Amino acid sequence: MTDTLIKVDLAQSPYDNAQIHNRWHPDIPMAVWVKPGDDFVLETYDWTGGAIKNDDSADDVRDVDLTTVHFLSGPVGVEGAEPGDLLVVDLLDIGAKPESMWGFNGFFSRNNGGGFLTEHFPHAQKSIWDFHGMFTSSRHIPGVNFAGLIHPGLIGCLPDKKLLDTWNRREQALIDTNPNRVPPLANPPAPKTAHMGGLQGADRDRAAAEGARTVPPREHGGNCDIKDLSRGARVFFPVYVKGGGLSVGDLHFSQGDGEITFCGAIEMAGWVHMRVSLIKGGMEKYAIKNPIFKPSPIAPAYKDFLIFEGISVDESGKQHYLDVNVAYRQACLNAIEYLKKFGYSGAQAYSLLGCAPVQGHISGVVDIPNSCATLWLPTEIFDFDIQPSASGPVKHIQGGVDMPLSRDR
Amino acid sequence: MTDTLIKVDLAQSPYDNAQIHNRWHPDIPMAVWVKPGDDFVLETYDWTGGAIKNDDSADDVRDVDLTTVHFLSGPVGVEGAEPGDLLVVDLLDIGAKPESMWGFNGFFSRNNGGGFLTEHFPHAQKSIWDFHGMFTSSRHIPGVNFAGLIHPGLIGCLPDKKLLDTWNRREQALIDTNPNRVPPLANPPAPKTAHMGGLQGADRDRAAAEGARTVPPREHGGNCDIKDLSRGARVFFPVYVKGGGLSVGDLHFSQGDGEITFCGAIEMAGWVHMRVSLIKGGMEKYAIKNPIFKPSPIAPAYKDFLIFEGISVDESGKQHYLDVNVAYRQACLNAIEYLKKFGYSGAQAYSLLGCAPVQGHISGVVDIPNSCATLWLPTEIFDFDIQPSASGPVKHIQGGVDMPLSRDR
Amino acid sequence: MTDTLIKVDLAQSPYDNAQIHNRWHPDIPMAVWVKPGDDFVLETYDWTGGAIKNDDSADDVRDVDLTTVHFLSGPVGVEGAEPGDLLVVDLLDIGAKPESMWGFNGFFSRNNGGGFLTEHFPHAQKSIWDFHGMFTSSRHIPGVNFAGLIHPGLIGCLPDKKLLDTWNRREQALIDTNPNRVPPLANPPAPKTAHMGGLQGADRDRAAAEGARTVPPREHGGNCDIKDLSRGARVFFPVYVKGGGLSVGDLHFSQGDGEITFCGAIEMAGWVHMRVSLIKGGMEKYAIKNPIFKPSPIAPAYKDFLIFEGISVDESGKQHYLDVNVAYRQACLNAIEYLKKFGYSGAQAYSLLGCAPVQGHISGVVDIPNSCATLWLPTEIFDFDIQPSASGPVKHIQGGVDMPLSRDR
Amino acid sequence: MTDTLIKVDLAQSPYDNAQIHNRWHPDIPMAVWVKPGDDFVLETYDWTGGAIKNDDSADDVRDVDLTTVHFLSGPVGVEGAEPGDLLVVDLLDIGAKPESMWGFNGFFSRNNGGGFLTEHFPHAQKSIWDFHGMFTSSRHIPGVNFAGLIHPGLIGCLPDKKLLDTWNRREQALIDTNPNRVPPLANPPAPKTAHMGGLQGADRDRAAAEGARTVPPREHGGNCDIKDLSRGARVFFPVYVKGGGLSVGDLHFSQGDGEITFCGAIEMAGWVHMRVSLIKGGMEKYAIKNPIFKPSPIAPAYKDFLIFEGISVDESGKQHYLDVNVAYRQACLNAIEYLKKFGYSGAQAYSLLGCAPVQGHISGVVDIPNSCATLWLPTEIFDFDIQPSASGPVKHIQGGVDMPLSRDR
Repeated sequence: MTDTLIKVDLAQSPYDNAQIHNRWHPDIPMAVWVKPGDDFVLETYDWTGGAIKNDDSADDVRDVDLTTVHFLSGPVGVEGAEPGDLLVVDLLDIGAKPESMWGFNGFFSRNNGGGFLTEHFPHAQKSIWDFHGMFTSSRHIPGVNFAGLIHPGLIGCLPDKKLLDTWNRREQALIDTNPNRVPPLANPPAPKTAHMGGLQGADRDRAAAEGARTVPPREHGGNCDIKDLSRGARVFFPVYVKGGGLSVGDLHFSQGDGEITFCGAIEMAGWVHMRVSLIKGGMEKYAIKNPIFKPSPIAPAYKDFLIFEGISVDESGKQHYLDVNVAYRQACLNAIEYLKKFGYSGAQAYSLLGCAPVQGHISGVVDIPNSCATLWLPTEIFDFDIQPSASGPVKHIQGGVDMPLSRDR
Repeated sequence: MTDTLIKVDLAQSPYDNAQIHNRWHPDIPMAVWVKPGDDFVLETYDWTGGAIKNDDSADDVRDVDLTTVHFLSGPVGVEGAEPGDLLVVDLLDIGAKPESMWGFNGFFSRNNGGGFLTEHFPHAQKSIWDFHGMFTSSRHIPGVNFAGLIHPGLIGCLPDKKLLDTWNRREQALIDTNPNRVPPLANPPAPKTAHMGGLQGADRDRAAAEGARTVPPREHGGNCDIKDLSRGARVFFPVYVKGGGLSVGDLHFSQGDGEITFCGAIEMAGWVHMRVSLIKGGMEKYAIKNPIFKPSPIAPAYKDFLIFEGISVDESGKQHYLDVNVAYRQACLNAIEYLKKFGYSGAQAYSLLGCAPVQGHISGVVDIPNSCATLWLPTEIFDFDIQPSASGPVKHIQGGVDMPLSRDR
Repeated sequence: MTDTLIKVDLAQSPYDNAQIHNRWHPDIPMAVWVKPGDDFVLETYDWTGGAIKNDDSADDVRDVDLTTVHFLSGPVGVEGAEPGDLLVVDLLDIGAKPESMWGFNGFFSRNNGGGFLTEHFPHAQKSIWDFHGMFTSSRHIPGVNFAGLIHPGLIGCLPDKKLLDTWNRREQALIDTNPNRVPPLANPPAPKTAHMGGLQGADRDRAAAEGARTVPPREHGGNCDIKDLSRGARVFFPVYVKGGGLSVGDLHFSQGDGEITFCGAIEMAGWVHMRVSLIKGGMEKYAIKNPIFKPSPIAPAYKDFLIFEGISVDESGKQHYLDVNVAYRQACLNAIEYLKKFGYSGAQAYSLLGCAPVQGHISGVVDIPNSCATLWLPTEIFDFDIQPSASGPVKHIQGGVDMPLSRDR
Repeated sequence: MTDTLIKVDLAQSPYDNAQIHNRWHPDIPMAVWVKPGDDFVLETYDWTGGAIKNDDSADDVRDVDLTTVHFLSGPVGVEGAEPGDLLVVDLLDIGAKPESMWGFNGFFSRNNGGGFLTEHFPHAQKSIWDFHGMFTSSRHIPGVNFAGLIHPGLIGCLPDKKLLDTWNRREQALIDTNPNRVPPLANPPAPKTAHMGGLQGADRDRAAAEGARTVPPREHGGNCDIKDLSRGARVFFPVYVKGGGLSVGDLHFSQGDGEITFCGAIEMAGWVHMRVSLIKGGMEKYAIKNPIFKPSPIAPAYKDFLIFEGISVDESGKQHYLDVNVAYRQACLNAIEYLKKFGYSGAQAYSLLGCAPVQGHISGVVDIPNSCATLWLPTEIFDFDIQPSASGPVKHIQGGVDMPLSRDR
């Protein structure tokens, strides 16, 4: 049996586990060391470290302290890894913790994080998804059942000090353009809730004061939330510090492109089985700035899609200039309105787009002034027919069930 | 044999063909009428109406008058179609004109249209692609050969007057924010080069003065440049005027998501075989604002991808807020730098991303402040191995061949 | 435009076209010569040379003279090809003749060729299929519509004299075991109806007397009827004579694995666009006895299948020993009985299994005494839902339409 | 967590576990009862009950007593299931036992079971495969690594007495045609090694005397060895006795179509997570004789194949009449000869065809006298390029490693 190098007890606070951290900093000591060619298992918390419960209230989503996220397992030091190398990671398998065969999705309150469509869904809401082997369904969103495209939302190596400083500087510059915005433009270091792994005392405090938040994806990868970086994929990560320092967490049972609901995909605690190797000097050899990867030979083969288009004219009718975000938002809203015709609430439809293996394609980015984005909705995940026909839609979802909602206090 | 309802003589100016038009306006008379259930063929010019030649100079790309585009075949009136209906279009087949088995791709000069990476490739350049049955290759970009994912870049129904006015108003408002920008923020009506189909005299002049340019995709579809809206797809178009008025043009032999090179995909003259039917009142029945579609059961099955990530920090290091355009631009630049390691020039790599069946995914749009976009490069289109390995890249492309370049005069 | 090296006039008898032949013999002169690297088009008759008509009577199927088939276009000589080489053939594209956008399928009378299920369908029957771009449907089999997986049923190089003699000897030995069997065990040379291409006079007569019939697939490929050897595929053929002598015909718009109806797939006249090259000495280099090939990157992506099992106990209950033919026959019969529950006649269901892109898998061949074969029926080709459900099947096909039948006279 | 209804201790003899059986008989008592809609886990032995070890000797393969196989977990009774119903089984997930992350493949001696190519590989041989998450590789067959298409080789419901009698009668009739054949034509009941589950004493002895062997697939499904009946598939089984009596075993980590090596696929001990429901009266409603099934939405997506053809002329040159077994055997032999050019031993190549997700298609079954079968070898499972090229094959496998072989004593 493969060794489990990092174990996680879901009943224990992640702050009490020295092999967990929630900030990026080069001084975080390696939680464990491995050799190139080794394969091993790391267990992980869900990204909130257990703050969200398997129940029917969205209070926990409303009240979560987002400065605590994401709880990551690692860093894993790889012997021989040096700055400039590529760390090759084979994601041999990924799964949920056997004692926790469920996940959550939700929308944060507009005043506590928000989400892609927060103007339309400003309140905290939650959906719970049960796992049945490879499949999942939700008691809050009837009529769908699909296979998981399991992946880590967050994976990457430790930055060196220079890269860390770059991150902090450029993000602070953005914050400074509108420091009181809600939600904020970016998240500065938050020392109080920082978990710096095995780092203690003054070293911990100094590092915590500058430890980069884990929310955005950056040069090293990090919180990319790429659904196709799934079990079976091979990833090539830039190495910035001696040993690499690979950390992983924020596992998703399934996610749609964009992770539009922010809280988030179908979020779960679980484990990752991986193997590591090195391409010495690979960053220069292949001109690598951000990670590259190869998809898995095993992934859900949903093939029949209904594709929604959106252009960069927003819902108020305002013309934007080549803005893919606006275009994708319109495609999402178009899909939501379509699904409502079959009986779903808007919230259910929105959550579904965040959870199911929906594709978001950048279709046209040069035809001024409108970008075109497309949202690909797999039709086979539904228990009923959602194709358009001359006879019109049938209201299969009869209501009576919806996602719990908790208004701001 | 299926009837060819609109014929195109590539030796004739499109302005002399009354079944062609290059503006959107409800007064353009139907070029031909069909019945629901009919299938028929329409021939088309390439989007420039023959301005770009199969030669080894980019002068034509540099000098093209972009107020003339796009030359569309239509409008086709469908008996019984009324505002509020959905016009269902089956793209039964699409092909190149037998006498014109080639296409072009290129970059416009930054001063005449530009493109997605115009800061990096500011000069007019061109690549020519020859078609060999289902496959294409270019004398200007060696080492690649791939199957076409043939599709119309532009297809949609005529707007009614109210929708047309909305378009003109909102786009002018955008132009007014920076009227002297090069390239411009949007394109206002350009009556001089307007081709209003069968409309003549004062009627033509009045309509030409307000005829919407065909460049951007809009509510009706139009220039969506969606590579997956390909032969075999079924599209559901909103109907705004009696008869619908379906027009099509801007055929692409192949295109990458985003059509990043703007000039454009692999552009060609050709024909479209389609069948039409109606869903009466379908816009309301299915809450349709923009077209929706189903992809083809037949499409190139490239499966092995190398996936490049980009985040919304631009190449100068500046932090942008959740900007997918910036993120996708970085993913494209990352892919270009990678391909240069195998011997391609930057221009060749850029052109390739515009031509090959590259996917562009919106991977993360909520992790402030960085969006994450991914560019999926199919590895099977190359004659050689482009996978990363411990031994480093092999320079398969030896230079000596590049894309013609024409500097601004 | 690519040169069409062999043209076919469907109004002319194939016997009057010297670039056509219907026997295999090394003395048939090359109809045309090409160079390695050339691409070119060959037009073809349907396999019967026009004997079957687009009408609603099966008399032509009943009365066809099967000693006349298959009419092949070629042989094409390739400069430099020598015995022991591999001839690499890229099937760049394949299509129907524009003036003949239809095909036929049928069952021969048990007394004139029969078929895989001739005991159950002993009479001549016919279905006609119309082509609509990439799709086909039949006026004799309602409720289905699918994309063509176009391929040549028959393609290969001329045998040398030694190989020809081997064929004639071993097949005659089989015939001799039961010379009066109906249908026969194999087909010996039939000089009277032999078309030996450009060969005339005494040479023709001598060659015709020993020219191998084209019915069976053999070492050189020939009548393999492999549906996946389709447009876009690359095939590696053994070369036996100087120049190779590649011939092709028997085009199919679509076929199920096994071509169980014998008459046959959806049979059509058409054209093949191909490119040839050589691997010198490739037979020895790669230990090639029969052709090998790579499938196309473009093929219909039907993914949702209903899979029927069959074992080698025949319909009378008799136990056979590891006989895949018996097992596949049971799987076919099981599928036919299933489809009858939705309203199809047995003949319609049988024809459908011969025409649609049905897969036939050899699932188990070692579990004595029963082989297991599976038939994969793509569900997406039907206009209605054919999945099993608790409520039972709905009879979507109401009868009133069936395949024409002509009893033996 | 889902309940594990049947547990298996690999250190214990399966004969000591009353929830295991190795014969088919209606009197075997249900090991456990469930309700429609329940999901549950069953653990299983490998098919031999632990007779084959993870070592480097094939003695165990040579000496195995094949009258003991297959050890099945069950029967599971489903409340409300009655003869004539269809038992719907969702294979929610399947995996190896965590303490046993390996599997075996091998060839039986010609004198003890044999295999599809036993004339060419008459001696006992073995290969061991290690599992690394979703992937497997073998220390006995270098250069390959592939994702598992995990499935039960054997699954089905108990026969009623009438069906059991039919099986025994028809198989005995076959045996009687050549009772002394080695290997035998079929396997009669073998009471001595029969494990009749919870049945004891005289009841056990009487049932054991007539309990059908589990080797062949039959009407109820059973040992179908269908690789695509994998995790995620849905199967519809005929019900013959009250409660159904579903049993499962013979798990495979991966298998090629045909399971040509007989011992067998990559054989493993493991567990199956499944859900059951009923279609009342479904056998009559859907005319079901053998099980039908739908494949999984998640399966390895190997797409680039090298396809080998075989015809029904055997390796001695003898002509057979439309015999798919002979044709598939030739396709297998052709693939083996091809792989030997890259350095593999014949045994390694043979084992690979039994283990990897190789497809076997019934390509042509009507072109007298030759059937055509095709073997599809996925090229992506190899660490090196196995495509044919003008320069000829490179001997990547350098020898020194081979499969252990044990000659008959």
